[in-house]
Amino acid sequence: MPQKFAFTTAAMAAALEETTVSYEDLADIERDFDDAETDIIRKQVLLTVPLYSRRSKTISQIPNFWPLVLEQAPPDIDQYIQPSDSALLLSSLQNLSVSHFEIDSEDGSRGDPRSVSIRFEFAENEYFEDTVLEKKFWYRRSRDGWAGLVSEPVPIKWKKDRDLTGGLLDMVVKAWEADRSSAKSTGSGAVKPKGGLSPEQKALKKKIENTGMGGLSFFAWFGFIGRQVSAEESAAATALERQKRAQREARKNSKRKSMERSRSSTPSSDGEEEEAAGEGSDDDVGMSLEIFPDGDDLAVAFTEDLWPGAIKYFTQAQEQDALSDADFESDDDEDEDLHEPADDSEDEDERPAKKKQRSE
Amino acid sequence: MPQKFAFTTAAMAAALEETTVSYEDLADIERDFDDAETDIIRKQVLLTVPLYSRRSKTISQIPNFWPLVLEQAPPDIDQYIQPSDSALLLSSLQNLSVSHFEIDSEDGSRGDPRSVSIRFEFAENEYFEDTVLEKKFWYRRSRDGWAGLVSEPVPIKWKKDRDLTGGLLDMVVKAWEADRSSAKSTGSGAVKPKGGLSPEQKALKKKIENTGMGGLSFFAWFGFIGRQVSAEESAAATALERQKRAQREARKNSKRKSMERSRSSTPSSDGEEEEAAGEGSDDDVGMSLEIFPDGDDLAVAFTEDLWPGAIKYFTQAQEQDALSDADFESDDDEDEDLHEPADDSEDEDERPAKKKQRSE
Repeated sequence: MPQKFAFTTAAMAAALEETTVSYEDLADIERDFDDAETDIIRKQVLLTVPLYSRRSKTISQIPNFWPLVLEQAPPDIDQYIQPSDSALLLSSLQNLSVSHFEIDSEDGSRGDPRSVSIRFEFAENEYFEDTVLEKKFWYRRSRDGWAGLVSEPVPIKWKKDRDLTGGLLDMVVKAWEADRSSAKSTGSGAVKPKGGLSPEQKALKKKIENTGMGGLSFFAWFGFIGRQVSAEESAAATALERQKRAQREARKNSKRKSMERSRSSTPSSDGEEEEAAGEGSDDDVGMSLEIFPDGDDLAVAFTEDLWPGAIKYFTQAQEQDALSDADFESDDDEDEDLHEPADDSEDEDERPAKKKQRSE
Repeated sequence: MPQKFAFTTAAMAAALEETTVSYEDLADIERDFDDAETDIIRKQVLLTVPLYSRRSKTISQIPNFWPLVLEQAPPDIDQYIQPSDSALLLSSLQNLSVSHFEIDSEDGSRGDPRSVSIRFEFAENEYFEDTVLEKKFWYRRSRDGWAGLVSEPVPIKWKKDRDLTGGLLDMVVKAWEADRSSAKSTGSGAVKPKGGLSPEQKALKKKIENTGMGGLSFFAWFGFIGRQVSAEESAAATALERQKRAQREARKNSKRKSMERSRSSTPSSDGEEEEAAGEGSDDDVGMSLEIFPDGDDLAVAFTEDLWPGAIKYFTQAQEQDALSDADFESDDDEDEDLHEPADDSEDEDERPAKKKQRSE
């Protein structure tokens, strides 16, 4: 904590020890807020679908709209775009869209609104054959309580000697497919072979270990998998979590009532049934084979920032151009100062610097 | 723009010049999104009111809950809290709450959900007599198109020689009251006397000029006013803006139809009626008398970050304490490294550092 606060730490360390409120009580409140937030996202998606469709129609008339938006992408996206990626994106990206594909357009109350699909449309280009690359992210909950976005690798049909991932993406796809088919043949669903890595996984692991991942292409993102949580596991874990939460709530209410009846009863200990059924080892294997560990964060940045803010970023790009035209003298230096890639401290640039607190 | 993108700038500079899409078209789309966003905030407020009330009940049983939350406040709040402010807040802050006071609890469709009230409850303390300080922010739109939060100064009954703002807040309140009563007596509503500053304003201006504003107390925030936009001006400006937007939309649709009928007609120029009825000089006077220019940003940080994230920050504070206990050796140094106040580059700390992109 900041020095100014430090002197009272001792008095505060035990804030929770002095009450009957447990961490689990607080966590349950947070879970209720999460549920409400999910409802809100659902409403927001349904309310804005027609607006996004009107926006798409308008911006489709503007040449280079999406390349210009990407040019102004915030650092949490920009940091992953290498020079060769942007050459491709600038010359060939024709459209970008984000959809909440699990939401049923006829019955908006179904499906998870946090699941998203991010779709790129490309003109013919010298790098790959595909004209559409679409990456889907499912919002899932695992048995051990983790919740977040998971995905499946999306293959790219690279032209000869043009693979920007240097073969990594292909190997992820191969290891994934081998894993799937072996899981199917053993009839064990999403459970992986216990005997360690498959030959394809071993090859991928070696490749990752021998590759400097520093200048990794943006397109390696299409290989992101994340945790392997099936739809079935997620549904079961979500149902179980809700059930336990309701039980805790009921127990707490009955305890409160019994305490109101008689203040002399000893309180029963809370949260005794808490479990942590972590499958850590399974997950560790997954992460060591992950070529784009922040893939879920990047999906969130597209969904919550670049997509809703596209017109703002486009306008910034236009203003930047106007500025460059006017101020041709020190053009290059300034540009670099403003947008040195992969520097997180730049987040500040996002906020329009309309005014500053006086300080001296 | 980043160097990697720079080589295509020239080709892109004129993206809008090559289409019939105007800036005004894009701005209108953004305005429609703003309206939808306001609807969403309204729904969110109505949906979460019972959750917040349950949360308040639970956390009221935890001693020092809000001081511990403030201890972990994000940089956009923490930067304004001086050591003497935190001494006061830690020893005496008993409750904090944010309400969207313009929303009618009986008819949720009325009132602006972006207007907020931030309320602090204090135990008896050696600094001031008040037990409640409540600061209201109204979301308003001015005739010149600006929209945002405005407020009114809130007086604090300081005890003798204990004024943390060194008399500044009192002077703001006095200048404000003199301004109001002179506006009333001349019958000119919110319009200020044309003949420049009132004596109270002159005194305030001199005080501001002679005061180093660097270590300005957090409590000066209660003096924030922002732009002076009355409820009447805001309602009129909002109605006018909507009307113009609808007219543009109608004209665009009829133009599209007439173009569909005959491709030979010359398109009429768009947005010819755009006005910029700025009252710049009036506003400049206001800002030169503003003792807390970022007051609206701070209100937003309380509303959108500290208030919804309170349990998260509280939990962080507890973990921090646990960490300090375990690692008593290098306690002080680490704490300072982690939380050097007023350093924006710390924003990074907010995100749990669950994993890092491999880089080397």
